[in-house]
Amino acid sequence: MVKIIVDCFGGDRSPQANIDGALAALQNFDDLHIILTGDEEILKSELATREYPADRLEIVHAPEVITCEDKPTDAIRLKRNSSMMKAVMMLRDDDSIGGMVSAGSTGALVTGALVRVGRLAGVIRPAFCPVLPTMDGGIVGICDSGANVEVQPDMLRQFAIMGSIYMETVYGVKNPRVALLNVGVEAEKGDTLRQETYKLLQETDCINFVGNMESRDLLSGKYDLVVCDGFSGNVLVKTTEGTALELLKMLKKSIFSRTVYKIGALFMKKMFADMKSFMDYQNYGGSVLIGTSKVVVKGHGSSKAKAIEKCIEQAYRMETGAIGPRIETELAKYSHYEE
Amino acid sequence: MVKIIVDCFGGDRSPQANIDGALAALQNFDDLHIILTGDEEILKSELATREYPADRLEIVHAPEVITCEDKPTDAIRLKRNSSMMKAVMMLRDDDSIGGMVSAGSTGALVTGALVRVGRLAGVIRPAFCPVLPTMDGGIVGICDSGANVEVQPDMLRQFAIMGSIYMETVYGVKNPRVALLNVGVEAEKGDTLRQETYKLLQETDCINFVGNMESRDLLSGKYDLVVCDGFSGNVLVKTTEGTALELLKMLKKSIFSRTVYKIGALFMKKMFADMKSFMDYQNYGGSVLIGTSKVVVKGHGSSKAKAIEKCIEQAYRMETGAIGPRIETELAKYSHYEE
Repeated sequence: MVKIIVDCFGGDRSPQANIDGALAALQNFDDLHIILTGDEEILKSELATREYPADRLEIVHAPEVITCEDKPTDAIRLKRNSSMMKAVMMLRDDDSIGGMVSAGSTGALVTGALVRVGRLAGVIRPAFCPVLPTMDGGIVGICDSGANVEVQPDMLRQFAIMGSIYMETVYGVKNPRVALLNVGVEAEKGDTLRQETYKLLQETDCINFVGNMESRDLLSGKYDLVVCDGFSGNVLVKTTEGTALELLKMLKKSIFSRTVYKIGALFMKKMFADMKSFMDYQNYGGSVLIGTSKVVVKGHGSSKAKAIEKCIEQAYRMETGAIGPRIETELAKYSHYEE
Repeated sequence: MVKIIVDCFGGDRSPQANIDGALAALQNFDDLHIILTGDEEILKSELATREYPADRLEIVHAPEVITCEDKPTDAIRLKRNSSMMKAVMMLRDDDSIGGMVSAGSTGALVTGALVRVGRLAGVIRPAFCPVLPTMDGGIVGICDSGANVEVQPDMLRQFAIMGSIYMETVYGVKNPRVALLNVGVEAEKGDTLRQETYKLLQETDCINFVGNMESRDLLSGKYDLVVCDGFSGNVLVKTTEGTALELLKMLKKSIFSRTVYKIGALFMKKMFADMKSFMDYQNYGGSVLIGTSKVVVKGHGSSKAKAIEKCIEQAYRMETGAIGPRIETELAKYSHYEE
């Protein structure tokens, strides 16, 4: 049995989306057991209206909620009875639990995961690795997308190794093509950090390093994993999401501006729906934190049930794919680099 | 008379696009005089088929061409007879010439401008400032978009001051709203560089600093100028362009996948053309280099005539708006910071 905790509060659509996502995930996997954390009374009354396998679902009472206004370091110290921190502490203390999913405050989750759960052996810093859809129907992982705004070359090398294992374990991408985010494709491009990292990645046998990538090629389908510092990775992911959303909005506004466009759009209803679904990050789950000693998946704050279901699936696949031991084994080969 | 040099070689559509852009610009401004640099024979034979005001157009022979394969430092030393370096040297030596436009190698142009033309008084490092269209019909400038991959807070402050003057001089944006690119909107977000810059921008009276901006809000229309290091600025601009292009490609591919979509698209032909034109960077000119002692505008390598025409207009407006003296006056107020 694979045990995953789902933090039911803190997201914009909590707890309904979290509960519905959890129940959907239970249907997908027969050997999945889910623990919901949150206010017991609220959770019970929500569950009363739904059908689910009661032997594989339990509730752990945690009445407090961490909000985005809570300072992360205070939140993990003072809000021990929150749905998120209860989950974090159980994850740390209970060996039978494999991972947790939360759509709550990113800062509190990262701090809680680092301070309370800790890192896998050899990991300098865990990193976020969300995935985005590419235009050829595939996906691309971005590591780090924001956990570490200041990095060193050996950290970026670890992101490449951990991210490669993740893309293979969870998405079945064989020998993932790893690129370094840079301002040009030539080897000597970028600042000192990029130049040194380029050399280090070239020397790293266990990854399939294919060179520098310019950000305009992110969605081209030519790369499976992009390695970057958390600052530019954050810009990369949020700019992509932001541009896609703004263009969809513009498309919609344009269509409604003239009757003839509205008529044309009727013929294309399914096409627009397909495009919208393709670009909807809800369908691609959450941003996993790779490198913590237990599996931690961060769902988008606005996660709907579908997104939470996908987050649980990510956690399930990481746990059943034994991603932790695999990362430790690979990193041990490069442990002669200073930490 | 405003004199601008147009480097006619080095771009993907040279020299035709450069010549056509120059002739269009001559029609727009009666007091504009253009000098074309490049192989005299080729330029003359191209001009023979076109009509233009001969008294305001001259050719300076420069038979060599700098390519993207040329190392910038070698190019400026060894290719003095190239269309770009001839332009750079004339810009430096001839006081009557106000600026230059080139669609050639970015590296060679930046190196040439820095080493041969030099900086305005008080400028630590010149920076690129392209503009992108926003969803409310306005524009937003991004400074720096790639000239400086490693920066300090006082450099970012200068980008904010110079960029503000640029947005006002060339685009008539009054009191431009300046934001700092960051991983969140709260003041304490980001690395040390961002935190220190935030404080510095707050203390700078001559700009309208409105706080941090997350990259997903770039096109929202809430900001007129975004200040960033050249690495993340490059990611910001290229990701926006790349995502927009990939989505347009996807839209086109989807439409052609089914007959009913093709029929629908017929009704929307003008709408799609408008959207495409709106997102086409050719309509927004080039990336100006702000902070050099003379005006330097870098057109996209794939610039068509329209883009070159816009680049010349940018150079013209910077020169007639006396952007150089204005920048020097403002920066002098903050000269107590170390350079």
